[in-house]
Amino acid sequence: MYYIDLTELAGSVPMASFTDYYTVRLHDSDAAGVVFFANVFRIAHDVYEQFLKQLGYSFPERFAAGDFIIPIAHAEADYLRPLRVGDMVEITAAVAEIGDSSFIMKFQIVDSENRLLATVKTVHVAVDGRTFHRMTLPEDFKKRLAQAADIA
Amino acid sequence: MYYIDLTELAGSVPMASFTDYYTVRLHDSDAAGVVFFANVFRIAHDVYEQFLKQLGYSFPERFAAGDFIIPIAHAEADYLRPLRVGDMVEITAAVAEIGDSSFIMKFQIVDSENRLLATVKTVHVAVDGRTFHRMTLPEDFKKRLAQAADIA
Amino acid sequence: MYYIDLTELAGSVPMASFTDYYTVRLHDSDAAGVVFFANVFRIAHDVYEQFLKQLGYSFPERFAAGDFIIPIAHAEADYLRPLRVGDMVEITAAVAEIGDSSFIMKFQIVDSENRLLATVKTVHVAVDGRTFHRMTLPEDFKKRLAQAADIA
Amino acid sequence: MYYIDLTELAGSVPMASFTDYYTVRLHDSDAAGVVFFANVFRIAHDVYEQFLKQLGYSFPERFAAGDFIIPIAHAEADYLRPLRVGDMVEITAAVAEIGDSSFIMKFQIVDSENRLLATVKTVHVAVDGRTFHRMTLPEDFKKRLAQAADIA
Repeated sequence: MYYIDLTELAGSVPMASFTDYYTVRLHDSDAAGVVFFANVFRIAHDVYEQFLKQLGYSFPERFAAGDFIIPIAHAEADYLRPLRVGDMVEITAAVAEIGDSSFIMKFQIVDSENRLLATVKTVHVAVDGRTFHRMTLPEDFKKRLAQAADIA
Repeated sequence: MYYIDLTELAGSVPMASFTDYYTVRLHDSDAAGVVFFANVFRIAHDVYEQFLKQLGYSFPERFAAGDFIIPIAHAEADYLRPLRVGDMVEITAAVAEIGDSSFIMKFQIVDSENRLLATVKTVHVAVDGRTFHRMTLPEDFKKRLAQAADIA
Repeated sequence: MYYIDLTELAGSVPMASFTDYYTVRLHDSDAAGVVFFANVFRIAHDVYEQFLKQLGYSFPERFAAGDFIIPIAHAEADYLRPLRVGDMVEITAAVAEIGDSSFIMKFQIVDSENRLLATVKTVHVAVDGRTFHRMTLPEDFKKRLAQAADIA
Repeated sequence: MYYIDLTELAGSVPMASFTDYYTVRLHDSDAAGVVFFANVFRIAHDVYEQFLKQLGYSFPERFAAGDFIIPIAHAEADYLRPLRVGDMVEITAAVAEIGDSSFIMKFQIVDSENRLLATVKTVHVAVDGRTFHRMTLPEDFKKRLAQAADIA
């Protein structure tokens, strides 16, 4: 039930991107006065969900059908500057690579002065929703991912 | 105010490790029925906090003093198998590298059958708690990190 | 250091309200497939923070100044229908009562068909940010709360 | 699909209680330096989950079977003193009332000096896991709830 073999993630595709905005909330922060590191992943994923929605991929529908889900096999973030409560940040999500059974998303979070605060990268693999066994990305979904640049 | 220059993280030190246990909770999971990826970072950090406590490093004291805090500059995780609600997992935290102004922690999360579920890596940099400017790791803290294998 | 004496919360003021929208995210849900109950409080508070911002109250500024913060002394929620991932909900925040050193907020969360999903009520008390000792609400802030209906 | 009719929650039963401990973590806190109010609900629920486990009620099994789940219809908390990062708190969970199709849990959170920090109350209703329609509490579960005082 291993999620991933990164060796397949070879060919790169044209960059597709999607932008959203978020005001940092109190619950995102911790006693250090800045956003808790794990919440940056959540903030990026929030935008990813809106991106998928635009692509016609619905989490609840796929969970209910149990046919095709895309869990995260790898995630990483670089924290360049702290995010603070009340900050309005701009998050750009982009499809960075598309493989046979996986794809990579990259996110950039910048502040209102366009300074880079953090970057996030997530690797998603297609698995059967019931068995969690790896599967190839459905052609239709793959095509929509690749064309995302045009519709986003 | 950039947190990190990873080039300094060269020399490796003897592995210091610390183990704790956690029962996966409902709030860790999402509608896919497994733990939400960002929460794996939080679960690792929970153990890191206990580890630092044993080393005599207190978050609230350092935040109050504002003298020496150690935010995360980079974090990454590999998800091998899903964590499920009710699972009792074992988390091992280890000091992987110690630099002049930063250190690396590595975490392994295994289930009750000792199968690896996830690994997490976090890079921590020492910064002044008021200015967030980078500083060298205090000698005493550095020594305790290096000796952690003995006390953990 | 007790936060609250609810007996003072007598006089009611004209209802001031503020509305915002939220798309339920994966991280809000749990393995039951619906939003984890505690996250409904967070969703309400997210809107409260935007409301306070409009009133000119800044959390980070007040935390930094340590002069006047308004922690929650009581919170309650009624859950009428489950919130599901992808749902677009409308949250209405209203100032329900204003006392000498506290005030009450009420929130209603409805779905796109205007069905009530949940209600939340929070009681906020003014305390000194350093000592957490209770204090009277600053006149200016009290006035802005009361007039919120006009500016929101 | 309304979860609850509180009028049925009349008869009280012998108090059953269960105690657990928790060290407040960084992610529980916010930029005010104390635990974010909604997280107190989560901390109480974490203990509730351990309590149910002792009673033989498994969330994942019930979610998978879809036969009998017990969502929260009402939750409330009183915050008496702030919880701070690093605090070791003791949480006592007790079955306060058992009705035909619902039950009430009460929680007390005290610090190491036995000072009351917060109380939480949650009302749980039995619903069919697929339809979310209300149902009577299964006799066996009801009996175990009532006897909890003996096994906890």
